Amino acid sequence: MTFNIISDQILLRLTEIVGTGNAISKREHLEKYAHDETEDLRFYPQIVVCPINTDQVSRLMLLCNENMIPVTPRGAGTGLSGGALAVHGGLVISMEKFNKFIEIDERNLQATVEPGVITEELMNAAAQKGLLFPVDPSSKGSCFIGGNVAHGSGGPRVVKYGTIREYVLNLEVVLPTGEVIWTGANTLKYAAGYNLTQLMIGSEGTLGIITKIVLKLIPRVKDNLIMLASFSTNEEACAAVSSIFMTGVTPSTLEFMERKSVEWVIKYDNFQFDLKPGAGAFLMIELDGNDLDLLMTDAEKINLVLESHGCIEVLLADTTAQKDAIWRMRRAMPLSVKSNSIYKEEDTVVPRAELPKLIRGIKEIGLRFGFDSICYGHAGDGNLHVNIIKGNMSDIDWNTRLKDGIREIFELTVSLGGTISGEHGIGLVQREFMSIKYSDVHLNLMRGIKSAFDPKGILNPGKIF
Amino acid sequence: MTFNIISDQILLRLTEIVGTGNAISKREHLEKYAHDETEDLRFYPQIVVCPINTDQVSRLMLLCNENMIPVTPRGAGTGLSGGALAVHGGLVISMEKFNKFIEIDERNLQATVEPGVITEELMNAAAQKGLLFPVDPSSKGSCFIGGNVAHGSGGPRVVKYGTIREYVLNLEVVLPTGEVIWTGANTLKYAAGYNLTQLMIGSEGTLGIITKIVLKLIPRVKDNLIMLASFSTNEEACAAVSSIFMTGVTPSTLEFMERKSVEWVIKYDNFQFDLKPGAGAFLMIELDGNDLDLLMTDAEKINLVLESHGCIEVLLADTTAQKDAIWRMRRAMPLSVKSNSIYKEEDTVVPRAELPKLIRGIKEIGLRFGFDSICYGHAGDGNLHVNIIKGNMSDIDWNTRLKDGIREIFELTVSLGGTISGEHGIGLVQREFMSIKYSDVHLNLMRGIKSAFDPKGILNPGKIF
Repeated sequence: MTFNIISDQILLRLTEIVGTGNAISKREHLEKYAHDETEDLRFYPQIVVCPINTDQVSRLMLLCNENMIPVTPRGAGTGLSGGALAVHGGLVISMEKFNKFIEIDERNLQATVEPGVITEELMNAAAQKGLLFPVDPSSKGSCFIGGNVAHGSGGPRVVKYGTIREYVLNLEVVLPTGEVIWTGANTLKYAAGYNLTQLMIGSEGTLGIITKIVLKLIPRVKDNLIMLASFSTNEEACAAVSSIFMTGVTPSTLEFMERKSVEWVIKYDNFQFDLKPGAGAFLMIELDGNDLDLLMTDAEKINLVLESHGCIEVLLADTTAQKDAIWRMRRAMPLSVKSNSIYKEEDTVVPRAELPKLIRGIKEIGLRFGFDSICYGHAGDGNLHVNIIKGNMSDIDWNTRLKDGIREIFELTVSLGGTISGEHGIGLVQREFMSIKYSDVHLNLMRGIKSAFDPKGILNPGKIF
Repeated sequence: MTFNIISDQILLRLTEIVGTGNAISKREHLEKYAHDETEDLRFYPQIVVCPINTDQVSRLMLLCNENMIPVTPRGAGTGLSGGALAVHGGLVISMEKFNKFIEIDERNLQATVEPGVITEELMNAAAQKGLLFPVDPSSKGSCFIGGNVAHGSGGPRVVKYGTIREYVLNLEVVLPTGEVIWTGANTLKYAAGYNLTQLMIGSEGTLGIITKIVLKLIPRVKDNLIMLASFSTNEEACAAVSSIFMTGVTPSTLEFMERKSVEWVIKYDNFQFDLKPGAGAFLMIELDGNDLDLLMTDAEKINLVLESHGCIEVLLADTTAQKDAIWRMRRAMPLSVKSNSIYKEEDTVVPRAELPKLIRGIKEIGLRFGFDSICYGHAGDGNLHVNIIKGNMSDIDWNTRLKDGIREIFELTVSLGGTISGEHGIGLVQREFMSIKYSDVHLNLMRGIKSAFDPKGILNPGKIF
């Protein structure tokens, strides 16, 4: 694929479409758009534009398509796989001004929003109507709902409520050719041809630019409580996970945290927690519902399972302060790693009963390759975030040999029935590992779909495959 | 697309692949495979084969692809849109011998099955392990799970549990070129490239032949109760639907039945029911959960809503016999229409708060075009099955003018934010209405996807678009 540099004349036309106040081309202002939250990558676009409506996005795409200019759509830039990086330069379309709530439809329990709405603001707006939007990735305070759709986002409540895939009903999309479609209908069921809504979800901005989103909301849940269970070893904690579901109770959150992840939060975030010497790993189990007595009964069932798996101690948090503290601890983990070490985060996912094998394998691979890791994540979904810490590893090992270790982690993940990303996406940084999971035949199907949407390959090139 | 007739030589080779016992080419034995449950259509294939494993399916596809022979995959033939009909003749691949339960994995709450397993048998097998597979289309006693996946099946419990789309984790698929892929991973989350699992669901056998299915199961629910509420008019009953959800309670089933649908069941099925003169329409509301007291509290909340919508009477069914009777009545409706009149069934779906406008519009269109209709369906999803009854309509009106009336129904559906099929699919009979919902740009995207999977267009030609 050979792309064109944006000429001065095209630059002018791009700027005219959005207005000079919404176009950014000075190098110092481009820095913000040159990175996301993935390690320390930097790719500068030639120009960033911030369109304010679908028609502008359509005209931008048409112009770029005619002139073979690469276009990278961008949400809030909180991604963890480099999906929003302009690896071929060209144009970045930032959706930051698409931030309107179009409607919260209480009669149908639906919300229609623009993609630049911050996820937590959507959650709050739903809550004000007594409704719940349950998809809360750890970046919920800053990420955009459009980026969540593009990545098929998850978060800690997927285990009970599903990923964003189960909440997207319909999408307005500008295609790479500038044409505009609605992918589906505002209905809870849909059996009218190929489901392009579901295809767009998780396509990481390679098939079209999302300009409106119709979401399903659900009734608010009133009560919850949290159990924090400690175990001697990672494997014991992980082994308890699948047994918890065999009680018939489905927690609203089931997180795994290895000791070191708690230690780092205590050390770097001044978090107050009585971390006992024997506690090697934790499970954080949240139950929610509308009847507190029933939740207590469910908690007792889970308690029995935890005991049978050698659990050392269970703390029951049922006051807001206690629950908030545990959530703060869990939510602080990504940043405590990110801020205090050079690291790489891998987003492994397996069937949950395979978690003990996964974590044992990861640690064993780390020993062989000389890297340490901090693991935590959504154990209820079998989704383990593996933060590989540079520590004492030499630069040359970090930059070259480590890749073989990561490859082994993904090979293990796939061999256990899992895949190479549960919720962070492939983007730029995991592309090279796609062949571990997919045959050429499979990848060619994906490429064929891409061509049907984007014949010239101008939209978010260099991502996924 | 020009297809070839199957030559004697190819016929021999097809037969060799599956063995003579699994090949059917005598006209009288083909009749069973020439129709599904869609009205009275008949399309005879040249030959039907019943492969027993993935390798055989792969070899069949390879041979047909090389020789431009049209292939129609077939489940149990219970479809309602003609999707399994061999409109271009050629080969039918019947999946009836793919009927093995490969595994029920209690540790991961998953089942791996072949596509020819009968849906109700899967539900029963799950129940024996204390688990629930909640997708129960009305044909559950005879339909195949593979057909359910191919059509994105729903049924009465979608309103709480979602369609089959939320339960399919991974699929083994034979592509039209004979190659075999697994579409995803056996995991609850998946963010590793385009989601081909979701794309396959609802693709009606046009992209590949499903040969293995990995499904998510959920914990069994212990208790339920049913409310049967009568209203004076269709519109009053429909208007209550969206208000029920605004209580915060999500029923496990919420069905609408107009008076006539109950009358026909009484008349043609000798069903015993005290149908009072003023009862113009019914809502059947099932609540399920693990605490009967909580269900009763929820039922009271719903009762208040029903009263505020002018409900005449509410019957509460809490014994097994009472509940079974109501379910029998509801489940008898499709057959009581099918067995006693020439009819056409349309599968309209809208956001549920638009149901009153939908049913009023359908009746008004019927008056203008001179047709009567019997309406019932999954009102909680906004999914209304419209059975158009021939009655006194002349043959010429039935065969020509009616089409314009159906077109108006679909135009109304789409104008209300809905679409032209909620769960029955497009298949053969709704193809001509696709342009009501989709632009050429949109349809060409679907065709482009089809080409990426099936460059020669041999798999289930003549369906969807």
